Amino acid sequence: MLSVEIIAIGNEVLQGDVLDTNSHWLCKQIAGLGGRVERAVIVRDDQTAIVRELHGAKQRQSRLIFTTGGLGPTGDDLTLAAIAAATGQPLAINDEALAMVTTTYKTLAQEGSVPDAAMTPPRKKMARLPQGAVPLKNPVGAAPGMLLEIEDITVVSLPGVPGEMKAIFTEALQPTLDALFGQSAYLEKRVIVDCRDESVLAPILQAVADHHPDVYVKSRAKGFGPDVKFRITLSTAGPSAGDVAQTLEKTLTSLKQALDEHGMGILEVKEPE
Amino acid sequence: MLSVEIIAIGNEVLQGDVLDTNSHWLCKQIAGLGGRVERAVIVRDDQTAIVRELHGAKQRQSRLIFTTGGLGPTGDDLTLAAIAAATGQPLAINDEALAMVTTTYKTLAQEGSVPDAAMTPPRKKMARLPQGAVPLKNPVGAAPGMLLEIEDITVVSLPGVPGEMKAIFTEALQPTLDALFGQSAYLEKRVIVDCRDESVLAPILQAVADHHPDVYVKSRAKGFGPDVKFRITLSTAGPSAGDVAQTLEKTLTSLKQALDEHGMGILEVKEPE
Repeated sequence: MLSVEIIAIGNEVLQGDVLDTNSHWLCKQIAGLGGRVERAVIVRDDQTAIVRELHGAKQRQSRLIFTTGGLGPTGDDLTLAAIAAATGQPLAINDEALAMVTTTYKTLAQEGSVPDAAMTPPRKKMARLPQGAVPLKNPVGAAPGMLLEIEDITVVSLPGVPGEMKAIFTEALQPTLDALFGQSAYLEKRVIVDCRDESVLAPILQAVADHHPDVYVKSRAKGFGPDVKFRITLSTAGPSAGDVAQTLEKTLTSLKQALDEHGMGILEVKEPE
Repeated sequence: MLSVEIIAIGNEVLQGDVLDTNSHWLCKQIAGLGGRVERAVIVRDDQTAIVRELHGAKQRQSRLIFTTGGLGPTGDDLTLAAIAAATGQPLAINDEALAMVTTTYKTLAQEGSVPDAAMTPPRKKMARLPQGAVPLKNPVGAAPGMLLEIEDITVVSLPGVPGEMKAIFTEALQPTLDALFGQSAYLEKRVIVDCRDESVLAPILQAVADHHPDVYVKSRAKGFGPDVKFRITLSTAGPSAGDVAQTLEKTLTSLKQALDEHGMGILEVKEPE
């Protein structure tokens, strides 16, 4: 499974001013593609801190690293400078990125959204990418995303504004994701169990998980007290849709047997929402 | 300022199944106490990964480390085992924690919420703490929190269920927080500016931030296009309420002057919600 890390960047997140929903959204997408997010970190607008996380991800042999935030025109937007420092690929104006930013400001000036389309230093800053990087078109904002493939690691930088981050991921990034994840498949089933006590359920689930190491088995209480039920999530990723369906079916059969033996019934099997 | 790190633990978060709102809530609380969250990370239910983050936090000289999640009865709840491994304080039944868990299950059994109050191994597991740790009473769930002071570092482990995490933080943890944060004060003001282009605003804010290094200056767009406005957040922490009020007032005056010089007006000054 492709090992992925996410680095979210922004003081406003660690100040408790903004809830980081980007990392959650990315985790969902990557699970759905058959990848595995090993780790997601939030750091401040601090070049040393960002570089430290990039080096750490490399040491942990992550293949795909996402950054979110820190691509804007202000002096505290340091993501690309940090990637340049961590990879040794110096920042320089990228002509393709410059054309993207220039077009955006022309449109904004025509609409009357900005006073003029002049390419001031802060605007130009958004077109300064690490050498070898490819800009990713931002259809809803000014700062392009960035894709950098270096050795066997792919670094993808997306803006922190959720609408911009999602738009780049679902549009400009698709060819890269197709190439990285190929035919990987992911499947998940949710089972609602008639059991009121996780400490009774725990050893049963542990045994099922031990017999099916490729399947992620997780229980979660729904409520607390007399009305509690447990939701068990079984999920797996693999090279093809057929493989993952078969693996999950076998695990579901084991789980049913184990619960039956302990006098607990499955109330419902659901597809994830 | 007290340097804080947060380690959130749980495969379900990195699978994209659950949005981690705990870290955001903790960031807000810590900013309000006058502390500074340097970093927040989410890792899988993997002892090696948790230990790595604990070692990293120590190397970065963080004084207060929060963990959330992984305190429950199941085999994949590994937080306390990881803390034991990272600190060299072996796990053992903590009598005070055992009494807490026993009382909880007695109550649950009396209510009919669980079949019996027997202290099975999974239930007992929640009372196994690293040597020298103090349990933190969980008023709404079964797993106690944990407080471990080791050298000059305080490690606080809270459950992953948000209601339980918040209850322990706001009740049992208060004396510890009072001792750590003392009289530190934090103040924040938000300014809405009549400007439509962050790339114009950026150098102005940078100059203000350079003249007031103790103040965190952050701008955020509200909307995009003809109706965009910018919200600027000024915040600072310091040893007393008087100090932080004075620092923020001076910065606000500088900001007003700088904006005036560039023909931009402040539309509104707000206290944070």
